[in-house]
Amino acid sequence: MNKPNPYSNPDLDEQTLSTEPIFQGKVLNLQVDTVRLPNGSTSKREIIKHPGAVAVIALHAGKLLVVDQYRQAMGRCEVEIPAGKLEPGEDPMEAAGRELQEETGYTAVSLQHLQSFYTSPGFADELIHLYVAEELTAGEMKLDEDEFLEMQEVTLDEAYAMIRDGRIADAKTVMAVYAWHLYQATGQWPK
Amino acid sequence: MNKPNPYSNPDLDEQTLSTEPIFQGKVLNLQVDTVRLPNGSTSKREIIKHPGAVAVIALHAGKLLVVDQYRQAMGRCEVEIPAGKLEPGEDPMEAAGRELQEETGYTAVSLQHLQSFYTSPGFADELIHLYVAEELTAGEMKLDEDEFLEMQEVTLDEAYAMIRDGRIADAKTVMAVYAWHLYQATGQWPK
Repeated sequence: MNKPNPYSNPDLDEQTLSTEPIFQGKVLNLQVDTVRLPNGSTSKREIIKHPGAVAVIALHAGKLLVVDQYRQAMGRCEVEIPAGKLEPGEDPMEAAGRELQEETGYTAVSLQHLQSFYTSPGFADELIHLYVAEELTAGEMKLDEDEFLEMQEVTLDEAYAMIRDGRIADAKTVMAVYAWHLYQATGQWPK
Repeated sequence: MNKPNPYSNPDLDEQTLSTEPIFQGKVLNLQVDTVRLPNGSTSKREIIKHPGAVAVIALHAGKLLVVDQYRQAMGRCEVEIPAGKLEPGEDPMEAAGRELQEETGYTAVSLQHLQSFYTSPGFADELIHLYVAEELTAGEMKLDEDEFLEMQEVTLDEAYAMIRDGRIADAKTVMAVYAWHLYQATGQWPK
C-alpha cells in the first residue's frame, strides 16, 4: 500500500522498460528493473518490494514503551518501538493496535496517525505507518511463535541515553523519540 | 560498516546456522540465513546487505536544502535531504561532504555528526550516518551520469507542508525536519 504520489516531474521521472523478478520470499521480493532516464539512456535499479509495516509511539504513565529484540540483519539486539509487518489487506491502524498488544500486552482506547514514511527509498518500497497511543490498558503479551522480545518503559532522558549508547539504533525509533521530545517541548505532535 | 553492538541478551540472541547467497547486485546483496532461535527451533531470515549511506541536514540562510528526485522503488519523485551511498572504504564524514557538494553545489566548512541509524532493521543492514552542515559556500552541482535531481531551499513551515502533502515521504528527511524543529525549539541538536 503506497502513499499517494502527490506530483510528477517530467524533468526527473524515469520510465520502467522491464522488470526481472529475482526472488520471492516470505517477507520481501527482489526485482531488477530496467529504466529509461530523463536523458534517454537506460539504467538498472535493484528494488525490494515489501508489504509495509506499522509502528507505535505508546506512552504509559509518561514513559515510552520499547521492546528489546534480536535483529539478524545486523547480528545484534536493538531497542525499538513496537512494530510489525502489515498482513495482506490489513488496515494499518488495526495492525498498529494488534502489534502493540502482541509485543507489549497493552491495548489502546484509540490510536492517532502521526506519519507514514518510506524507510529506504533508494532501494525499497517499505512504508511504515506510525501511530501515537496514549490511554493504555495493561494485558498479556501475545508473541508469534518465532518472536522473542522484552518490553521496557523509558523516560525521554533514558531514551536519549539509549540512542547515545547505541541500544536504540533504528530510524523509526529515533524519529519516535524526536517526535515525543517535540510533543513535550511544544505541546503538539509534529505533523 | 555497522555500529558497535553495545550489548548482547542471551534470552533473545539468535545464532546463525547457515547463509545462502541469493543475489549480488551493484547496490545490494540478498541472502537467506537459517538461524537458531532462543527456544532451540530454527527459522529463515531474508537479509539485504547494503554498503551504508550518508545524509546531510544542510542549512543555508535559515533554510533547509532539499533535493527532488525520482525513486523507482515507489515509482514517484520524492523531496529528500541530500544523501548517497558510501563508497568502499570511504569515511562517512567525507562522503557526506561529497554528496552535499555533488547534489547541491554547496560545500561546508565543517560537518557535525548528529546520528547514525539503521533504516529497516527487520530485513536490511543499511546504516545512514546523518550530519549537520551550517556554514555553506555555494558552488556547482556535480551529479553522477545517471543522477537527475533539482535542489530547493525550504523553511521549516514549508518542510512541514511538504510532509503533509506527501512530497517529503522518507524516514531520514522526516527525522531531519524533526531534528531541525527541535534545534529551533530548544537551541540544541537532539542527541
